[in-house]
Amino acid sequence: MTYQTLLVEQHDIALYVTLNRPHCRNAMSLTMVEELAQIFHELEHNQNIRALVLKGSEGHFCAGGDIKDMANARGRALQTQSSPEQEENTNPFFELNRAFGRMITQTDHLPQVVVTVLEGAVLGGGFGLACVSDVAIACASAQFGLPETGLGVIPAQIAPFVVKRIGLTQARRIALLGERFDGTEAVKLGIAHYLCNNTQQLDEQLTRVLSKIKRCAPGANRVTKSLLHQVGSAEMEALLDQAAQQFAEAVQSSEGSEGTMAFVQKRVPEWAQ
Amino acid sequence: MTYQTLLVEQHDIALYVTLNRPHCRNAMSLTMVEELAQIFHELEHNQNIRALVLKGSEGHFCAGGDIKDMANARGRALQTQSSPEQEENTNPFFELNRAFGRMITQTDHLPQVVVTVLEGAVLGGGFGLACVSDVAIACASAQFGLPETGLGVIPAQIAPFVVKRIGLTQARRIALLGERFDGTEAVKLGIAHYLCNNTQQLDEQLTRVLSKIKRCAPGANRVTKSLLHQVGSAEMEALLDQAAQQFAEAVQSSEGSEGTMAFVQKRVPEWAQ
Amino acid sequence: MTYQTLLVEQHDIALYVTLNRPHCRNAMSLTMVEELAQIFHELEHNQNIRALVLKGSEGHFCAGGDIKDMANARGRALQTQSSPEQEENTNPFFELNRAFGRMITQTDHLPQVVVTVLEGAVLGGGFGLACVSDVAIACASAQFGLPETGLGVIPAQIAPFVVKRIGLTQARRIALLGERFDGTEAVKLGIAHYLCNNTQQLDEQLTRVLSKIKRCAPGANRVTKSLLHQVGSAEMEALLDQAAQQFAEAVQSSEGSEGTMAFVQKRVPEWAQ
Repeated sequence: MTYQTLLVEQHDIALYVTLNRPHCRNAMSLTMVEELAQIFHELEHNQNIRALVLKGSEGHFCAGGDIKDMANARGRALQTQSSPEQEENTNPFFELNRAFGRMITQTDHLPQVVVTVLEGAVLGGGFGLACVSDVAIACASAQFGLPETGLGVIPAQIAPFVVKRIGLTQARRIALLGERFDGTEAVKLGIAHYLCNNTQQLDEQLTRVLSKIKRCAPGANRVTKSLLHQVGSAEMEALLDQAAQQFAEAVQSSEGSEGTMAFVQKRVPEWAQ
Repeated sequence: MTYQTLLVEQHDIALYVTLNRPHCRNAMSLTMVEELAQIFHELEHNQNIRALVLKGSEGHFCAGGDIKDMANARGRALQTQSSPEQEENTNPFFELNRAFGRMITQTDHLPQVVVTVLEGAVLGGGFGLACVSDVAIACASAQFGLPETGLGVIPAQIAPFVVKRIGLTQARRIALLGERFDGTEAVKLGIAHYLCNNTQQLDEQLTRVLSKIKRCAPGANRVTKSLLHQVGSAEMEALLDQAAQQFAEAVQSSEGSEGTMAFVQKRVPEWAQ
Repeated sequence: MTYQTLLVEQHDIALYVTLNRPHCRNAMSLTMVEELAQIFHELEHNQNIRALVLKGSEGHFCAGGDIKDMANARGRALQTQSSPEQEENTNPFFELNRAFGRMITQTDHLPQVVVTVLEGAVLGGGFGLACVSDVAIACASAQFGLPETGLGVIPAQIAPFVVKRIGLTQARRIALLGERFDGTEAVKLGIAHYLCNNTQQLDEQLTRVLSKIKRCAPGANRVTKSLLHQVGSAEMEALLDQAAQQFAEAVQSSEGSEGTMAFVQKRVPEWAQ
């Protein structure tokens, strides 16, 4: 399977997906959104792949939305305006924007542990994608920001995920000032988890993260990730009841047996070998 | 228009409102609450003013609620107790407290970018007001705190906004210990965004913040602020649908056109001139 | 009253409860859960005790769930599987896990100010217990972590409280990597509030915290804690109406009178003597 906008490789437990449109700092085109959505759809049912590594080619993560798609949408919008049967939700700008947001939501809820490697431009949509990763590794020199309102538009499918990532207090400042900041600040703000100074450190940190993921039972990690996502939306007592049920199932599963036995026998469990 | 308790001036895109009761460190009287509420009510429909700067006169932001209002309320409460037709919600302490809280909520949702300049006393109600600003600039020597439970009362209209500002974990410590802390700690806790060491630095930081606000499209900033406020209360998928709709409208608005054109022509957009 | 797994002492306004199973680093057994639940049930109606200090014996806070209880549950589960009338919720693993979670919820909502002293192992269930304290004092050398998924099970009654403590962004990293970290990192992440380097500093910090609690009016602190817990689940306007009502009651209570009088007379209020 080849892709127009992505490089995809599997190593051990991880799928590496590289955003690959280096001529425009890996700007997020509609094709890229669709290709990512397709890969993620397959991952939702894949039990072997336990981590997804998202990175960008040639020193940038992702510079935001692609301008050509916007121009195309403008063309279609002008056509649509002249036809009387237009319905609001078929507006091409709506569709373009919402497709990106659906892919972000999909990333957020992937059963795999999602790791982003953040270098160079992490702007607009790229910033949004970073905000839904389970683990974000940032280069100190990376540039984060929400340039949208400076261009007369809004970070519609991004700002809500920034609020979920770091809370309203910092999100409102960043969005309403069109702030730019580097990787050091991104780690301070809690957008990213680990700070590195160069590509070699990024690679080493990624290796450490992947080896920790490998140490965790794949099924237990999936159930835990899904549980974490429900805090805040589900009623707490009902959630804890459900979680106790899932605990009982996990203990009595083959993973639970293997984990207990490995612990008693002081050996590494099968899933970590 | 003149005010008993406030100084009000407009410069360029910003309205400067100075709490001006220096004899009591700008303590929040009922008259001040009413005058602020009136200004904010007008701002809700004002498209020209894009930023509100809130500060205090003579080196203090605001020392909390005014003691004279409390004494007056006590007088009215004693009268009311002797009359049989009292209804619970007409208790004068209730009214005094709730009027303050309504003004805080109004500040939180103003369409303008709200910037607070925090010096000296930032206590009780003053702390609450700081917690709903989009951008808070703090002097290192400022004194923050919730003195209420030390006085036998509760931070009723304040503590909920502290939780929304910095989360339950720090809010419970600060409220239940009656903690006092300075501007350096306020920035660490995420209550304020920028730390300054003196008045000159405060002024310079305010200038930088206002010039960033000016760079952002006024309509886009309003829609974005409203969107940010809905995260957590609105259902996420419905919110993202609405946001995509607003994105489509923004792109096709005169602001969206001007922003795109300015970007292509490598010039500053009209709203930033 | 004596306990199998706890040491309990009262000094002044505080009840000190020490987890006391040092042979297994104070691992949380079902008996310990039941004994804690019983003490907390009594505390819910106790107006004299204003602070609960939770610590562990011999240099550890709590190393997580007890393995023997798990083995016993496994025995009962095997028996139950052979009997046809099993209902899902009577699964012994479910019961064991949920009993622990109920105790955590109870701790979270205690009317007293809950202070944890975190040394040595603060793992699994011990980590969960730390996450519901109003004030957490950590030793730099303490070891925090969620080892569950590394053992093939899930942090079912713990991870939701970690999300409530420090947000989803850090919780997902910690849970899905099975991260271990020390007290310094715990304070940076906002899990604990104060950092100490040794037992003497822990004791001194605890003394300072208790004297601050003593300075706060007991009734006002109870109402404030309950108010803080409702932010996020209650509708904000209704919550602020209720809070204004509680403010009016507090002002007109004997605590409110004493607080006002003490303030005017420049003396320490009765509750702080």
